[in-house]
Amino acid sequence: MADRRFFTLAGSFQLGQLAEMTGAILSDPSQAGAVMTDVAPLDTAEKTHLSFLDNKKYMDVFRTTKAGACFVRPELAQYAPASMVCLMHKNPYKAYAIAAQMFYPSGKPKSFQASSAVIDRSATLGADCSIEDGVIIGANVKIGNRCRIQAHAVIRNGVEIGDDCDIGPHTTITHALIGSKVRLHAGVCIGRQGFGFAIDPAGYVAVPQLGRVIIESDVEVGANTTIDRGAGPDTVIGQGTRIDNLVQIGHNVKLGKYCIIVAQVGISGSVQIGDYTMLGGQVGVAGHIKIGAGAKIAAQSGIMRDVPAGGQYMGSPAVPMKQGMRQTALLAKMATKKEVITDE
Amino acid sequence: MADRRFFTLAGSFQLGQLAEMTGAILSDPSQAGAVMTDVAPLDTAEKTHLSFLDNKKYMDVFRTTKAGACFVRPELAQYAPASMVCLMHKNPYKAYAIAAQMFYPSGKPKSFQASSAVIDRSATLGADCSIEDGVIIGANVKIGNRCRIQAHAVIRNGVEIGDDCDIGPHTTITHALIGSKVRLHAGVCIGRQGFGFAIDPAGYVAVPQLGRVIIESDVEVGANTTIDRGAGPDTVIGQGTRIDNLVQIGHNVKLGKYCIIVAQVGISGSVQIGDYTMLGGQVGVAGHIKIGAGAKIAAQSGIMRDVPAGGQYMGSPAVPMKQGMRQTALLAKMATKKEVITDE
Amino acid sequence: MADRRFFTLAGSFQLGQLAEMTGAILSDPSQAGAVMTDVAPLDTAEKTHLSFLDNKKYMDVFRTTKAGACFVRPELAQYAPASMVCLMHKNPYKAYAIAAQMFYPSGKPKSFQASSAVIDRSATLGADCSIEDGVIIGANVKIGNRCRIQAHAVIRNGVEIGDDCDIGPHTTITHALIGSKVRLHAGVCIGRQGFGFAIDPAGYVAVPQLGRVIIESDVEVGANTTIDRGAGPDTVIGQGTRIDNLVQIGHNVKLGKYCIIVAQVGISGSVQIGDYTMLGGQVGVAGHIKIGAGAKIAAQSGIMRDVPAGGQYMGSPAVPMKQGMRQTALLAKMATKKEVITDE
Repeated sequence: MADRRFFTLAGSFQLGQLAEMTGAILSDPSQAGAVMTDVAPLDTAEKTHLSFLDNKKYMDVFRTTKAGACFVRPELAQYAPASMVCLMHKNPYKAYAIAAQMFYPSGKPKSFQASSAVIDRSATLGADCSIEDGVIIGANVKIGNRCRIQAHAVIRNGVEIGDDCDIGPHTTITHALIGSKVRLHAGVCIGRQGFGFAIDPAGYVAVPQLGRVIIESDVEVGANTTIDRGAGPDTVIGQGTRIDNLVQIGHNVKLGKYCIIVAQVGISGSVQIGDYTMLGGQVGVAGHIKIGAGAKIAAQSGIMRDVPAGGQYMGSPAVPMKQGMRQTALLAKMATKKEVITDE
Repeated sequence: MADRRFFTLAGSFQLGQLAEMTGAILSDPSQAGAVMTDVAPLDTAEKTHLSFLDNKKYMDVFRTTKAGACFVRPELAQYAPASMVCLMHKNPYKAYAIAAQMFYPSGKPKSFQASSAVIDRSATLGADCSIEDGVIIGANVKIGNRCRIQAHAVIRNGVEIGDDCDIGPHTTITHALIGSKVRLHAGVCIGRQGFGFAIDPAGYVAVPQLGRVIIESDVEVGANTTIDRGAGPDTVIGQGTRIDNLVQIGHNVKLGKYCIIVAQVGISGSVQIGDYTMLGGQVGVAGHIKIGAGAKIAAQSGIMRDVPAGGQYMGSPAVPMKQGMRQTALLAKMATKKEVITDE
Repeated sequence: MADRRFFTLAGSFQLGQLAEMTGAILSDPSQAGAVMTDVAPLDTAEKTHLSFLDNKKYMDVFRTTKAGACFVRPELAQYAPASMVCLMHKNPYKAYAIAAQMFYPSGKPKSFQASSAVIDRSATLGADCSIEDGVIIGANVKIGNRCRIQAHAVIRNGVEIGDDCDIGPHTTITHALIGSKVRLHAGVCIGRQGFGFAIDPAGYVAVPQLGRVIIESDVEVGANTTIDRGAGPDTVIGQGTRIDNLVQIGHNVKLGKYCIIVAQVGISGSVQIGDYTMLGGQVGVAGHIKIGAGAKIAAQSGIMRDVPAGGQYMGSPAVPMKQGMRQTALLAKMATKKEVITDE
């Protein structure tokens, strides 16, 4: 049961409703009227709780859970405890997500404007926005409807933000155009002047960074992530892309649509990344690299050369996944054989 | 001598007092009445200064220092300059820590509430708290005694914080229960909704993150570190654990007691780490991994598989330390022998 | 053309003026009177725009650009489109930087003091400073002339800052002395008590961190970077050094002059780095290491041993560049030969 200090439960639901809303099949249709009062993880769920099984690592917990109902892949339903009703779905995690949103819907911002917010007269705010304490909004800023601008956010002159955005506390946004349904978490810095300077024996000469950051709709950016503005071209984050915490995105980067960028990734300047690409945690990408659509890069990889569309890479410097796994296995094998390499 | 603009010296101490408080043995007991006026590093210490030698890298500096007294392991005292009194201790760094706290005790917060702080009426604050400018405290927040809530900290509805905590500037705390003697440095983000969504051809479906962050007592969290709240289970940081700057801790992570997590480590979701574990800088841990108590993971390692208790690992993907060192040595050796691998 | 919402164009310039100011040679001196109205990247430049070619990856774009003029190395001018006037320069990126500063000069801060700023009476501010909303300035702080202190910056007691500095939003500065022309981007944390404690079976004993952070003149520090103060000695950042986003610099580090530290680098405590050293993105440096002047460390390297002046290193653990490249090539080659290592 989610902690009532932090979460508000919207109600109970019958299994039949839950199956219908999520597209799941009940293992026992006669239980369609059974009432679920909450969602819960397998290990703490009780009789009237709805849970999910998505990762086979948790099969043991699944076999012994007290959960009354559970989203599960059809082929695993046979391992359910006798007392459980299975909601069979080929994507149980997605089905659970939808159900959990029914139990705990995300609230709309309340129309509010804190007295300590400092809003330039030339800024325009849409309807039903919540502007919290300490927010600073510059000249000619345009903000759409139903946006939540959280405490101490700093939004500089000329920035535009669409509808239904959630701008986290302590964020800084400058030189940026942001679409709708964008969520920036705490401490995000958007639009900093990129790391651009000419190297010269007499010191470094700053190169004016004359581009912007364009964030398309439905993008999420994790806490304390930094996205630098373009040097001339723009830095672009494509629609639907999810960026985790503490990621660095350099100037001029073009990140495609629906990419997944895990925490602490670093993407150097002028990199181009296609749609639906996944970068594992702590991946680094060198400057001016192109990564094709749908590529999957394993955690901690260092991408020094272009990656073709659909490519799966690992290692630093990164190589195709199969080669990388062979290299890893080979080196391990050799290191266990003292005699293979001798001083012959 | 510490800069008087930033530090306040509490007084001078006799060597006898210092030895007694730290459990050290004086190399020359007749000097018990000698007065030390300050602590200082070996290379800048003067005649009335107390220093320490903890790392053999600094033996040369030790032999020639002007420090009047020095904490040192008993077996190294013989290398001290003739003018130095040694305070012999098996853990000279700890002894120095205690002595330095005598010279420079950490102050208690002054009872204070800035007029610009925005505190919800339903929040409860203990005695002798310092609430600085720009602080925002939400509904039903509970804060214990003698806490320092630094400038612009944002503490959301329902958060609870114990006694003697120091909450840094620009921190954001949401969905969290925090023990006593916890120190969060600047820019820390606690309780963000984790990186949780179901992947679906039509886009990503947000999974409500219904857990909390539980931080036990005596935990320290470095600047700009991010700790996401649980997805259903809680994210837990065990008692006494020390976390450095710019670390990422994903949802559902269970971090044991007295762990040391060095800067820029990334711990993926649902990882479980036992007590007294050390993760070197920039280590990455993949999702759902278990690391046993007392394990030591070298800097930059990538942990892709479970690590047994007491295990020492290195490399990416990580292998046991001995194997990793053999692999490193083997590869280096092979690369210096052009002929070993030929196109035969 | 830079977005007029964010950038202010200072005027048009004749090619002759631009060549003179930058030290470039016109490929067609008869065009010295031709007027350039703006700067632009090669791919979007138009007839009256000035561009630059610095990276051979963009030769194809160069051959077909519509830019009216372009900074380029003399030997590449022959590949220019017929309609282009080349401004030949051995360092075209530097020449472009100077020209772009002419078109888009950086503004001086307007003398301003926000009513919501909280400034201690004992602090002294120079002439023509801009102190934005939510700024907090402690006792005995000294700030020079023409500084911009951006929104919500927190500057603690005793800190000193020189002339012409730009202190970003949401920064925290404590226990620090900062030179002139220093730029700290958003979310930077300077002077945190370092990660210093003595390990003891009974827990960890905090070691008072009695040093400072010294930042010399003309240093730039990227967003959300953290620089811990010294434990006894100071942490020092040398003149002219450029530090990117999300970098961690531990206590007692001495960073030389004109170093380049790319994003997400982590430098452990007591490391000493010589002048003009370059650390690529995500490099890690172990504690107490010395890196000689002019060294170049490839991205993601892990420096576990001292590096000589001018050394070029790669890998984790890092080895000299040539050896690292041989190791990488050798391993790749072996992994493609199933038969080389057999179970003989």
